[in-house]
Amino acid sequence: MLAVALSGCAAGGMAGGGDPLPSWNEGPAKQAIVDFVRDVTRDGSANFVPPGQRIATFDNDGTLWVEQPIYTQFAFMIDQLKAAKPRPEWASNPVYKALMANDLKGAMAQGEKPLLGLLLQANSGMSVDDYDKAVRQWFATQRHPTLNRPYTQAVYQPQIELLKYLRANGFKTFIVSGGTMEAMRPWAEEVYGIPPEQVVGSTQTIKYDVATGKLMREPSLFFLDDGPGKPVGINLHIGQRPILAFGNSDGDMQMLEYTTAGAGRRLGLIVHHDDAQREFAYDRQSAMGKLDKALDAAPRNQWIVVSMKKDWKQIFPEAR
Amino acid sequence: MLAVALSGCAAGGMAGGGDPLPSWNEGPAKQAIVDFVRDVTRDGSANFVPPGQRIATFDNDGTLWVEQPIYTQFAFMIDQLKAAKPRPEWASNPVYKALMANDLKGAMAQGEKPLLGLLLQANSGMSVDDYDKAVRQWFATQRHPTLNRPYTQAVYQPQIELLKYLRANGFKTFIVSGGTMEAMRPWAEEVYGIPPEQVVGSTQTIKYDVATGKLMREPSLFFLDDGPGKPVGINLHIGQRPILAFGNSDGDMQMLEYTTAGAGRRLGLIVHHDDAQREFAYDRQSAMGKLDKALDAAPRNQWIVVSMKKDWKQIFPEAR
Repeated sequence: MLAVALSGCAAGGMAGGGDPLPSWNEGPAKQAIVDFVRDVTRDGSANFVPPGQRIATFDNDGTLWVEQPIYTQFAFMIDQLKAAKPRPEWASNPVYKALMANDLKGAMAQGEKPLLGLLLQANSGMSVDDYDKAVRQWFATQRHPTLNRPYTQAVYQPQIELLKYLRANGFKTFIVSGGTMEAMRPWAEEVYGIPPEQVVGSTQTIKYDVATGKLMREPSLFFLDDGPGKPVGINLHIGQRPILAFGNSDGDMQMLEYTTAGAGRRLGLIVHHDDAQREFAYDRQSAMGKLDKALDAAPRNQWIVVSMKKDWKQIFPEAR
Repeated sequence: MLAVALSGCAAGGMAGGGDPLPSWNEGPAKQAIVDFVRDVTRDGSANFVPPGQRIATFDNDGTLWVEQPIYTQFAFMIDQLKAAKPRPEWASNPVYKALMANDLKGAMAQGEKPLLGLLLQANSGMSVDDYDKAVRQWFATQRHPTLNRPYTQAVYQPQIELLKYLRANGFKTFIVSGGTMEAMRPWAEEVYGIPPEQVVGSTQTIKYDVATGKLMREPSLFFLDDGPGKPVGINLHIGQRPILAFGNSDGDMQMLEYTTAGAGRRLGLIVHHDDAQREFAYDRQSAMGKLDKALDAAPRNQWIVVSMKKDWKQIFPEAR
């Protein structure tokens, strides 16, 4: 009922408005989105979905914002590592040595697990509140290394319009990311219009310290919201199967499968990073955001492959 | 912005309306609630809280609905056990034997852990979708053993009014229960106005089966949302510290502490089950919903103890 009332308000406010997706070029991708939204929201449609069930899930890295040259939360976590008091056992750790020498490739060469293990350690031992302050401070001051803008503006304008358009049509929009919730929640509402409780992601183990009343960060992973973990995260946090899912990599494959396997009309979409000029061009074998199996699976699942180059008129928001 | 728009709509709809809490008797508890809501929502108030941060969390068992003679999800899970194909190892299990003989006391006498372990086994091995169907079927047909009404109507009318009143004032309302999410989500929106993603609770381990594309229930506990687990569950699912929390037992103690320890104005409330005539009378040493430490802690934390007998004019909704 909430969503009905809201949808009513929003529809009234948008009456007579122009194109809700001005940063999308006319073409099959934009058409598929608009057709889908009309079909599931129109009264009397055979595919009508009640507002409370209009669930849309978006991956974050590479789908809503830039994921090159490295996932942004890794950049933040590495800065936390550099600022942390070194532990004796790190001295002989090749990942630690590579990171301290700013040799990212060398650190990644050891594999994702040793890197993540070290980052989890360095990003633990403090309270959730203190960590939240560090996240906010970092995002307020750090800029993307090559795009010459703050990370929170290295986001895709067409997707911000799409999120808004979906909400105006009674959808609930969620992030379902392999990245950590803690690094997204402080700014996701301002940037994407997505409140903290609608941000689903990976997270470290958190314990409530009964003596101090503080939530403390432990040095282990509680939940990995990636690949087959994404449908699990959706069930845990949302409790309904989405009707629309948008991803960009093999880590989104199971979310797309789970979404489009549901009964009734569904829409699966994939961002294809093919625009070296305005963003980055990469797919099958990249270090971040590898798009291999999901690209092959797209045609048989009728997932829409959105070309950044052809389908997006503008990539980033105007500088603020 | 969502909440602002909604609050605007709702406030308009309520203008000139009467008492939003008609099932609450006039008295200090009702007054404390109304004063708190006015103070955090009034423009220009020193304690003003923006709508997106007006988070209210409610325990379920004993706070929103009846928890005697046994937590309802236990009743459901026991029925699942009785319907399950018996496993060979259950034959010698004293908890199993007691449950099959309808000797609930005998089953409980073994402790909560052996009971829970057995129930987790019997409530696993099927898909999330099939389990959801079983939950819906059970609630559609089962009635409370002594109150002569369906379980979904063994809910407290004053709390339904309070949830609605809070939402009309721009609050987001969440359930934060020790019970399982799966047993609440199918009916919480219809009964409480709380959508699935705002229901936080305990949950079994879920795995995505890549071969079939199904989410499957595993025989282990993934997360216990009780006691010190409640602030952890709040952080995991909501990502903000509540400004209002309502509980009824020691299992809610840390949620109340965590909520009222935050900066600015906060409100903690406890239902006291002191009405043997209309519901049940129990507190310190009961088998379910033991209220011992939290009752002692209430005065020094300024938590409001709500007497079911004195503060609630009507306990249950009119029969439908």
